[in-house]
Amino acid sequence: MNLILLFPDDFTGESRARLTGRRWEHVRGVHRPKPGARLCVGLAGGAVGTAAVKQWDEDGVELEVRLDRPPPPPLPVILALALPRPKVLRRVLLAAASLGVKAIHLFHCDRVEKSYWQSPLLRPEAVREALILGLEQTRDTVLPEVRVWRRFGPFAEETLPGLGEGRLRLAAQPGAAADCPRGVRQPVLLAVGPEGGFRHTEVAALAAAGLAAVSLGERILRVETAVPVLLARLF
Amino acid sequence: MNLILLFPDDFTGESRARLTGRRWEHVRGVHRPKPGARLCVGLAGGAVGTAAVKQWDEDGVELEVRLDRPPPPPLPVILALALPRPKVLRRVLLAAASLGVKAIHLFHCDRVEKSYWQSPLLRPEAVREALILGLEQTRDTVLPEVRVWRRFGPFAEETLPGLGEGRLRLAAQPGAAADCPRGVRQPVLLAVGPEGGFRHTEVAALAAAGLAAVSLGERILRVETAVPVLLARLF
Repeated sequence: MNLILLFPDDFTGESRARLTGRRWEHVRGVHRPKPGARLCVGLAGGAVGTAAVKQWDEDGVELEVRLDRPPPPPLPVILALALPRPKVLRRVLLAAASLGVKAIHLFHCDRVEKSYWQSPLLRPEAVREALILGLEQTRDTVLPEVRVWRRFGPFAEETLPGLGEGRLRLAAQPGAAADCPRGVRQPVLLAVGPEGGFRHTEVAALAAAGLAAVSLGERILRVETAVPVLLARLF
Repeated sequence: MNLILLFPDDFTGESRARLTGRRWEHVRGVHRPKPGARLCVGLAGGAVGTAAVKQWDEDGVELEVRLDRPPPPPLPVILALALPRPKVLRRVLLAAASLGVKAIHLFHCDRVEKSYWQSPLLRPEAVREALILGLEQTRDTVLPEVRVWRRFGPFAEETLPGLGEGRLRLAAQPGAAADCPRGVRQPVLLAVGPEGGFRHTEVAALAAAGLAAVSLGERILRVETAVPVLLARLF
């Protein structure tokens, strides 16, 4: 936790906030608060700054907050991700949030196991927790928006064309003839398939939505490795 | 498992191998063998090819093996990694092996918790298992060499200078003034510090060994994200 994310409800005054629960446990356990100690904080969706420890008790800590600089710039990418295994999903959400992705669309396709959609790790509060861990890691404050699409056909035909407007549109597909481009200077819509890649018919549907199949080369990476590698390569 | 890694002991004849244990469970559970079915296989440290299923019983499967092409090229990098949390270590080893890293040096430094060195995940067989999973993921056969260094001083002073000979020498350090270079065309020695980065004195010792401190920008990534991002950016 390199930054403690604050929410409007945490504020008890203009520049006063009180932390309880997980964040207080963290402050207590890791930072060992002393009066006047300074912590890096940020307001969800807003600015980043410092907080001075004023006082604390068993249940929480009072902070004097000063927010004075913007969060790091976002990555100009919309990430459309075939729903991975729940444990992997959590790691990918955390990594994507830490890298500055602000729009994530989780979708179903043929090689996604239907049972994944029942996982408790897909509940809004679990998704939110993974994203917050990612933001705290890289001192960001802007929560990514996550949407889910349980049917591939309508997602590819009706949703993807709109998402791709004005963007370089790519679908990562093992074995694709084209290499994933490097250092692009425009917004990107990036679709990442399931382990084993998209089916041929799915690649065709993605192409119809304007997404060009690209590959990272001979090595077929796990989703949790492929996403950071793709984003590092694109931006 | 996109490739099944074979070892000399698996061979019962010139081109005949028998799989038991984990690999047989995998073949049985995922590939549902039929006579003549073909699997992607590779010989540890050697060539890649296909294996035809000949026959099987409860305990194992007989394969007719033909190895006819080289594994994917390695990354020209030596990765020196401050020992991360054991669970993270496992994921980083797997990712590094899948990306083609062939030399990994795990070292101690001040921000590494001493207890990490006691973890069963650091035992040779656990390290080897993580590496094999990474190789199988990207159809590689060449096991990375892993060495451990429990004292930072001697590692930095005596070992790193030799490892760095003829290589671009970099140490990833959050907040470093220089950006990590992109698309280098030479072998690299890359040191990656613990969560929280190297201490100032450690950065100085790395500099004395010729390693320039470089950063990935404003965002301080987790080790398991930083390693794929650094490798994608360098190569």
